[in-house]
Amino acid sequence: MSREPNTVFIGRKPVMSYVLAVMTLFSAGNEEVTLRARGQAITTAIDVEEITRRRFMENMSVNEIHIGTEELPMEEGGTRAVSTIEIILSAEARPREEAKATQEPKASATEVPK
Amino acid sequence: MSREPNTVFIGRKPVMSYVLAVMTLFSAGNEEVTLRARGQAITTAIDVEEITRRRFMENMSVNEIHIGTEELPMEEGGTRAVSTIEIILSAEARPREEAKATQEPKASATEVPK
Repeated sequence: MSREPNTVFIGRKPVMSYVLAVMTLFSAGNEEVTLRARGQAITTAIDVEEITRRRFMENMSVNEIHIGTEELPMEEGGTRAVSTIEIILSAEARPREEAKATQEPKASATEVPK
Repeated sequence: MSREPNTVFIGRKPVMSYVLAVMTLFSAGNEEVTLRARGQAITTAIDVEEITRRRFMENMSVNEIHIGTEELPMEEGGTRAVSTIEIILSAEARPREEAKATQEPKASATEVPK
């Protein structure tokens, strides 16, 4: 796993610290945020997505999920296969902003001046 | 999670017992097999998919992945949210069978008899 922008690498920290990281990246204007995890942290990655979407960002959705395997070198030599997950999240325009946009009257050629 | 056909519920058994269950369902003629897991077993579900595909069934692929949340009742009352995963696997026609099929000459109206 290399360092990439807009990517949150899930490890052993408390779930809420990753939820905060995701929300910070979206608040900074990113349209997509990627979660990456391997081994037992995979469950945490899914917890992060579910908690973020259900509690904090209902406008967020899961775009893609990729699963795979990484070969990790072992101290005693050889490699060990470990499962990985990549969850690509995207945030749509917030419903409130959408509603506001449709309420704003458009400047129209047929508009009758009072 | 209700009992459904072609579904393997992933729990705390060794990974290989679930790999065997998946291969048994495909061998029985099912075109799709679903893995379901929640909580820490989610990582095992992904291990099962990766091991089955990489070691035993290269013609198998992941069709869909759904993640979600289930509210589990707690002994002391109330509920606890737990993340879930559903992985839908499908097996295409085996490459060997495909190759065999294309090698077989078709009976054709333009075929010239010897």
